[in-house]
Formats: sequence, structure tokens, C-alpha cells
Amino acid sequence: MNQADTLTIAGRSFTSRLLVGTGKYKDFEQTRQAIDASGAEIVTVAIRRTNIGQNAGEPNLLDFLPLSQFTILPNTAGCYTAQDAVRTLRLARELLDGHDLVKLEVLGDKDNLFPNMPATLEAARTLVSDGFKVMVYCTDDPIQCRMLEDIGCVAIMPLASLIGSGMGILNPWNLRLVIDQSKVPVLVDAGVGTASDAAVAMELGCDAILMNTAIAGAKNPVLMASAMNKAVQAGREAFLAGRVPRKFYSADPSSPTEGLIQSKA
Amino acid sequence: MNQADTLTIAGRSFTSRLLVGTGKYKDFEQTRQAIDASGAEIVTVAIRRTNIGQNAGEPNLLDFLPLSQFTILPNTAGCYTAQDAVRTLRLARELLDGHDLVKLEVLGDKDNLFPNMPATLEAARTLVSDGFKVMVYCTDDPIQCRMLEDIGCVAIMPLASLIGSGMGILNPWNLRLVIDQSKVPVLVDAGVGTASDAAVAMELGCDAILMNTAIAGAKNPVLMASAMNKAVQAGREAFLAGRVPRKFYSADPSSPTEGLIQSKA
Amino acid sequence: MNQADTLTIAGRSFTSRLLVGTGKYKDFEQTRQAIDASGAEIVTVAIRRTNIGQNAGEPNLLDFLPLSQFTILPNTAGCYTAQDAVRTLRLARELLDGHDLVKLEVLGDKDNLFPNMPATLEAARTLVSDGFKVMVYCTDDPIQCRMLEDIGCVAIMPLASLIGSGMGILNPWNLRLVIDQSKVPVLVDAGVGTASDAAVAMELGCDAILMNTAIAGAKNPVLMASAMNKAVQAGREAFLAGRVPRKFYSADPSSPTEGLIQSKA
Amino acid sequence: MNQADTLTIAGRSFTSRLLVGTGKYKDFEQTRQAIDASGAEIVTVAIRRTNIGQNAGEPNLLDFLPLSQFTILPNTAGCYTAQDAVRTLRLARELLDGHDLVKLEVLGDKDNLFPNMPATLEAARTLVSDGFKVMVYCTDDPIQCRMLEDIGCVAIMPLASLIGSGMGILNPWNLRLVIDQSKVPVLVDAGVGTASDAAVAMELGCDAILMNTAIAGAKNPVLMASAMNKAVQAGREAFLAGRVPRKFYSADPSSPTEGLIQSKA
Repeated sequence: MNQADTLTIAGRSFTSRLLVGTGKYKDFEQTRQAIDASGAEIVTVAIRRTNIGQNAGEPNLLDFLPLSQFTILPNTAGCYTAQDAVRTLRLARELLDGHDLVKLEVLGDKDNLFPNMPATLEAARTLVSDGFKVMVYCTDDPIQCRMLEDIGCVAIMPLASLIGSGMGILNPWNLRLVIDQSKVPVLVDAGVGTASDAAVAMELGCDAILMNTAIAGAKNPVLMASAMNKAVQAGREAFLAGRVPRKFYSADPSSPTEGLIQSKA
Repeated sequence: MNQADTLTIAGRSFTSRLLVGTGKYKDFEQTRQAIDASGAEIVTVAIRRTNIGQNAGEPNLLDFLPLSQFTILPNTAGCYTAQDAVRTLRLARELLDGHDLVKLEVLGDKDNLFPNMPATLEAARTLVSDGFKVMVYCTDDPIQCRMLEDIGCVAIMPLASLIGSGMGILNPWNLRLVIDQSKVPVLVDAGVGTASDAAVAMELGCDAILMNTAIAGAKNPVLMASAMNKAVQAGREAFLAGRVPRKFYSADPSSPTEGLIQSKA
Repeated sequence: MNQADTLTIAGRSFTSRLLVGTGKYKDFEQTRQAIDASGAEIVTVAIRRTNIGQNAGEPNLLDFLPLSQFTILPNTAGCYTAQDAVRTLRLARELLDGHDLVKLEVLGDKDNLFPNMPATLEAARTLVSDGFKVMVYCTDDPIQCRMLEDIGCVAIMPLASLIGSGMGILNPWNLRLVIDQSKVPVLVDAGVGTASDAAVAMELGCDAILMNTAIAGAKNPVLMASAMNKAVQAGREAFLAGRVPRKFYSADPSSPTEGLIQSKA
Repeated sequence: MNQADTLTIAGRSFTSRLLVGTGKYKDFEQTRQAIDASGAEIVTVAIRRTNIGQNAGEPNLLDFLPLSQFTILPNTAGCYTAQDAVRTLRLARELLDGHDLVKLEVLGDKDNLFPNMPATLEAARTLVSDGFKVMVYCTDDPIQCRMLEDIGCVAIMPLASLIGSGMGILNPWNLRLVIDQSKVPVLVDAGVGTASDAAVAMELGCDAILMNTAIAGAKNPVLMASAMNKAVQAGREAFLAGRVPRKFYSADPSSPTEGLIQSKA
């Protein structure tokens, strides 16, 4: 693939289209090994759960994932109000010396971790005004995704299915509406369960994918990280290569039958 | 992935789990470029359509895909009777100096290219008696797949969907029945349309995949070949890594909800 | 089925669980024939498009669907702001002598007719305060569906897929989250394409279905209305009867394999 | 629906398109109640498991389902060879005074109950020569389905999924190939789990459906029988009514997007 195929978020370019989380690993050592196998350049960190300096004397994730090598993306996992999310990201910005690229998520329910969209819209407005570059976890509702883009978010990150569910891409059609209309990158965030899910998302035209549980929760996380690395590249290349049309059978008298969904390519 | 993960067919070991065809390319030059990008070591050739020496004076595929570098797998595409298929493979064996690893396909209908199983079973018996190592294109019927294995076929190759359709894995359940019972390698042959289809097949536990149209018919065949190379590896690694269980939502009171299908891992 | 299985919305009970629209028919005569075949007792009317008295001298739908026989449900199809929707339903209440059961929809995009949820929430608050009994068209986002219920809406009506698309139930999982949490009736509104879609929605545990295009746009609308009438009853009865568990095969060593989704029964 | 829409098998016409089995009920009383609710006119009986007179002194199914009211269709459930199946149906013909309409099934595996197609073809040839009117359980392989039709079978009955699995229509595409080519009625036999599955099969263009476990295994068999009765009618009417085309969204610039599969209508 030519070298020009980079992912650009808020003016920064990346080669890898796989972003990974840091939760649920055995220890920071395994976290690092898996991230290396994934090829990820952007690593997201739940500020309320992971020590990146706020808890002096405890192991610091940044010792394993140095800022010189990785773009750390603070996130607001565990926040259920706009206020909590904003406060959390301001703390992260301090801890990271003014780093302003963040991932916003405001959850609406402790059982299903579905996003609270009104609170997400509210927090996004505050954070953008406050100078943050906001990548935003959201539903696959194209209207509210456009509102987030209009507010100034730098990336739209709809869920494919519930956080940690591994259920894959439940509604590729809504995802397509979001991809088709967005001028900023669209990343699937949440729900990927295995390599083919990642490939499907990329074939639909997503710009990148963020995942955590699918890797950290696999029986062999490091091998799954390698699988995901390849699957994201495979899906991206397939998207760019232009797949054959689906056709029920060669002598089918009707026009080519389209299967579940087409990519936008 | 450790180096022990090789594909063994009829006693020969291969690193790549992607087998490719040679039809529908612009010319032998593009065929070679795509095959290089695919990483395939086994390349199948339709003896009735492609010159591997039987037509003196015409371009010879083997000049582009030398036997020193590739395992050539003669196939019987275009044969509609057991007799035709047997005759075709005997010709191939002569042309290839006794090469005995072949792919049998006997078709049942010119419009949909579905296999004719009674004729396939008949041809398989003859060919096995005649010393061939028979890889066999077939339906996903587990009973007849077992008959083919009992006859002595060295690989079972059920269709995922119709040849050239790009419809993907239409019945993963039947495929699972075949995979679960087979002692010889099971390869999906026919129907893969894009990278995620290949990943899905490998995640189900297939040993390898054979494809042609999905690569040769893409807008950019060489890039798609690269995508398929990565997708097959991704699917294989995901299969070995052991995916997270699907779970509708974290607080779901029922046991983990299984989605469409699980791999046998 | 016993007679106690009635649908209760805002204190009124209905035998039929199929609600139908009145758009896209050839004329009011065909509208009436199709509605009779559907068995619907509640009929929704787009106040901005259909004359129920506001345009004196033109044919009046109520002459074909008398208020003595049908519960007319005014809706706000074509409204893109909360203000427009509220104004439209106040007009309807006047025209219908104080009738207060209404269907709210506020759209977000002229191309895909997806609901605008922030505007929908705003209009719902106003209308409930104003004494309306609000049935509300919305996304399948369980968080915002709960907000609508908390505001006091009397029925939650998530789309199954885009209005007029006939694409069926695209995300049964989200629908299940909404059904499982709701104390007021949940109706699928929009997206049903054929009889099996209606049955699927009812089997998931929906209380009723509202449709228009699937009937009015069929080649034979009256026959399709009859099909939908039966399909809704079939799905409801199947839901109440308790389907057999899905099981991959009888000797499957694993626990019963669940297919796409289960009903809540 | 007009009265001309009858199902004709081997020259006999039926109003109901739902055929039911008699296994797995609590007792013959419940069997009869469920069959009445199903509206079935043709009832299939496993001769090796159910007494229709061969075991004098035991309860006789025909006392509950008199031949004057029902067309009894003897079947060969539990037969694993052509010989067994032929012998069983000859016994049935004797018991039923020359009744020659039968359902042939020859199974290939005790675990998954998949049909053994070579043995099925062999038994079909013998039975047709012997004057039977053979309705035949088979795979969804269009080539072998055509062979069965060419032999002279009066109805082709492909499985939708494994017997007793309740998995629904796993491969609607193969089913469509069979439906499109067949001149005799095509019935889905095996795999239906709930009402929507039955509707889907009819919408694809099946002529009728045979089921047993989906009714007998439901928590409330009689209510499920009623559901299936309505679902089969709903699916048939929807097929005849001509559904709206699927269309991703109204402003979709591409031609109407086709979803999973279309009916042949």
C-alpha cells in the first residue's frame, strides 16, 4: 500500500489505524507486549482507573508506554455526567503537560455502558471551548454524530456494539450513514470481538478502530493483538482495493444482488 | 505466531494458508504480481483453460509461476462429468511429470456452478484408486464430505457460496459440522468476496482458503491480494488466540449470549 | 389466545397490535380497504399532509375513517423542529375536539428521516406539560428512550430501520434493551418491509407495530395488510407461546446455542 | 386471499400450507389439539415410532386423527439406509390400505440427522418405481434436488436447518436456487423455530412448510400451533402481495439496495 495512506486526526498523522486501550491486562508488562504486537501508535488510558502520575509511589503506565513512543489518549471511562468527564480530562491535561487530544465518553447506564448522548453533547461543547481536541464516543445516530462534528469534535467514535460485548458490528447501516456524512475521521469504538469484526468495520469505510477487551480478554492477548493489527490492515486494503460486487449467481438475470451492505468505495 | 503452525496437505507442509487461482487476470504478468502479494505457495490452474504446456507456442503459465517456486495444483474447472474430470487430471499429471496433487471439481449446472456430488464422489473414487492425491471441491453437506474423506481425499473443500459470487460464508453452521468431523484439512473454496470473509472462514476453524475471483476481480487485484494475505493470517491468529466470548451486555443475567456462531477453538 | 391479551396505551385498551398510517395510498377508498384488512384500530395521520378538516371543501379522511370506529392518532411527519411539532399537534387537538393521544416525531435530516433526538426530547417535555398523551418516534438508544419515558411519554416507538426503507429490524439488540427496561408499551415504528419483519419484532417482545409504507407500497396493498394483520398476531402468539430454544444440533456438547437473539419471554 | 390459492401435491389440493408432525407431544390428546390449532390438513407420522395399527392393543394415533379428516403422510424418520426406508414405507402402505403419498427421509448421522443424499436418491428411485408418490426430505443442494425431481418425486423438501434445531433458515440463497428451478412443490422441512422463520420461508417462495419440534417443543404447543398457522398464511400472502423493495434510504443515490434476499415474486 502506498505510504500516503495515513490516518490524520487533529492535524497529526499516524500509520496505524488501530488504537488500543490499556485495561484488563494482567500487568503493565503484558499491556506493553500486546500493544507492541498491535502496532498501535495511539493508546487510550482511563484516567480514573490507571495511574499516569496522579498516584505517586504506584506503578506508572507511562514507564511502560513512554510518551516519546506513544500518543497517549486520556479517556473518561467511568464518567456518568458531563461535569465528571470535563473534570477528568482537565486533570489529564495537567498530568500530561498540556496534552489536548482526548477521548470523551459519558456513559448512561452502569449495566450496558451505553453513551448518554445529551451529556456527551454538553461535555463536548465545554471541552471544545476549553481548547481540547475531542475524539468522542457516541451512538451510531447520524444526526447526533453530525451535531458532535458541528461542535468541533476531531473524531467521531460510534459504538459497534456495547462496550466489552464482543458482539461485532450490529448495525452497519447506521455506521454507513455516519461515515458517508462525516468530514472528520470516523472510528469504531467498542464492540469488536474478533479479527473479522475489525476487517468488516474497515471495509465499511471506517478510518480506524479502537478496541480493548477484544485483545485483553482473548486467551492469548499478544497473539490476538497481532491478529487485530493484520485485520485492520486487511480491511483497509480491501476497502481501497475495491471488492468484487456480490452477485447471487453468474447467470442471475437481475442486476448484481447486493448482500448485507456495501462499502462506500 | 510460532513457526510450527503450518498447513500440511498430503504430507507436504506450507506456511501460507491462502491458495489462489490464476483465472480472470489481465495477463500472466498481473497474475504473478497478485500471487506474490498474496503470499500463496499453492496455485491452482484450470487445465482446460490455461496453457501449462499442452498448447505449444502459446504463452505458458509455468514461465511466470515456475514449479521451483510454486506448488501447481491442476484443477478440473469446466468439467461436468466424472469422466471429463478424470481425463483432465490424467492429462495434467502427464504435463507435470507425474505430479499427483490435484483439485477435483465436477460441476452440476452451467448457471450456478454448483458441484455435482454424485459425479464428484464417482470421480474421487477413480482418482484415488489411480494414485492421485485429491483435494475436492464439494458442497457443505457433512455426510457427503465424510464420504469423500473415507474415499481417501486429502483435503475437503466446501463452497462458502457460489463460484464467483463474492457472497461470503452463507452457512457457517454446515461449515462447522464439516470442520468438526474432518481429520484432513478443510479449505473454503469459492464464495469469498472480501477480506473479512476470509477472516471469518479462518476463525471458524478452516485450515486454509482457496480463492480467485475475489482477488482477480477486484479493482486493484494486487492490493486485494495483499489484503487477503493479511486477512487469512489475521483470521488464523484470532482462531488460535481464542476470542472473547460474545456477551450481550455485562449485566446480562443469562449466560453469555452466543452470537451467530463460535469457532471450534 | 385468551381475551385478556390486550394492548393498553394511556389507559385505553385495544385488541389489535397493528397500527397503520394513511399515506401513499391511491385514494381514501383504498386506504379504507387496506385498513380494514389490517384489522387496525389505531390509525395515524400526518396532519401536515392529510385533510382531517383543516382544508374545507377537500376530501376529508375522517369521512372514510370515522372517529366512531377508529382511534385517530395525529402525527407530526414532516416536522424538523420541536416548535413545528408542538404547533402541529395543538392544531390537531383543536380539529379533533380535544383528542390528546398523539404521535410525536421530529426529524433530523430530509434524506434519511432519522429522528432528531434533542429536539424530540424538547418537544416531548412541552407536550406532556401541555396535557398531551405522547407516543414518541425515536432512535433505539436505550438511554434516550428512558429519558422519554421519564418525561412521561405513554409509548416509546423506536425505528427498526429508516422510514420507508423496508429494511426490517436492523438492530434487534438495541430494541431488546429498550423493551427490557420500558414500563410503557414499546412499538416498532418505521422500517418493517414484509410480514416476517413484523413477526420478528413481536417475537422480540414489542407490544405493537406501526407501519405505513410496507402496506401502502406493496403491489397489492390490501393483501399485504391482511398479511401484516396475521403476522403481528403470529409474532405475538409465538412470543407468548415460548419458542423452542435454538440448538445447533441435538448432540451438540455445548449448552444450547443461541442464534441471533432471544425474545424476553 | 382468493380461494384459488391452493397447494397441489400429486394431484390433490389443500387449503393449508402448513404440514405438521406428530412426535414429542405429551399425549395423543395434545397432539390433536395442536393440530387443530395449526389448521394442518396433512399430518406426517413416523411409522417406526408411532402406532397406526401395527401394534394391536396400544393407543392408535388414527383414533385421534381419523383418515376421514386428515391426510396421513407416513415418514421414515429413524431410517439410515435406503432398504430400511423402502421397507418402512411398504409397511405403511399396507397399514393404510394402499395409501401411496409418503415422505421419504434417509438420515446420515445419528448426531446431526443430516440427510444421506446418495441413499435418499437410491430409495427415491425404488419407491417411485414401486408406485409411491414420494415427498422427499433432502439437503438444499439444487443439483441433487433436481435429480430427485427428475426421478419423479412429487415434492422437494429441503431442510432449513438441522432437525429439531430451531435455527431457522440458514441458507436462504440455496433455498432460492431450489425454488426457482423446481416444477413440483418445494416445502421447507426441518429447522423452523418460531413464527417468523415460517413467514420467511413462505416469503422466499416456498409452497408449504412441514414442522414438528417448533410446535411440540414450545412451552405452549397449542398456542404456537396457532401462531404457525397465521405465520404461514402471513408469509404466503406477503409473497403474493409483492413486498416493497428494500431501499437503504430514500435519498440513496444508488439503485434500491437489496437486503439479504428477495422472494422470487
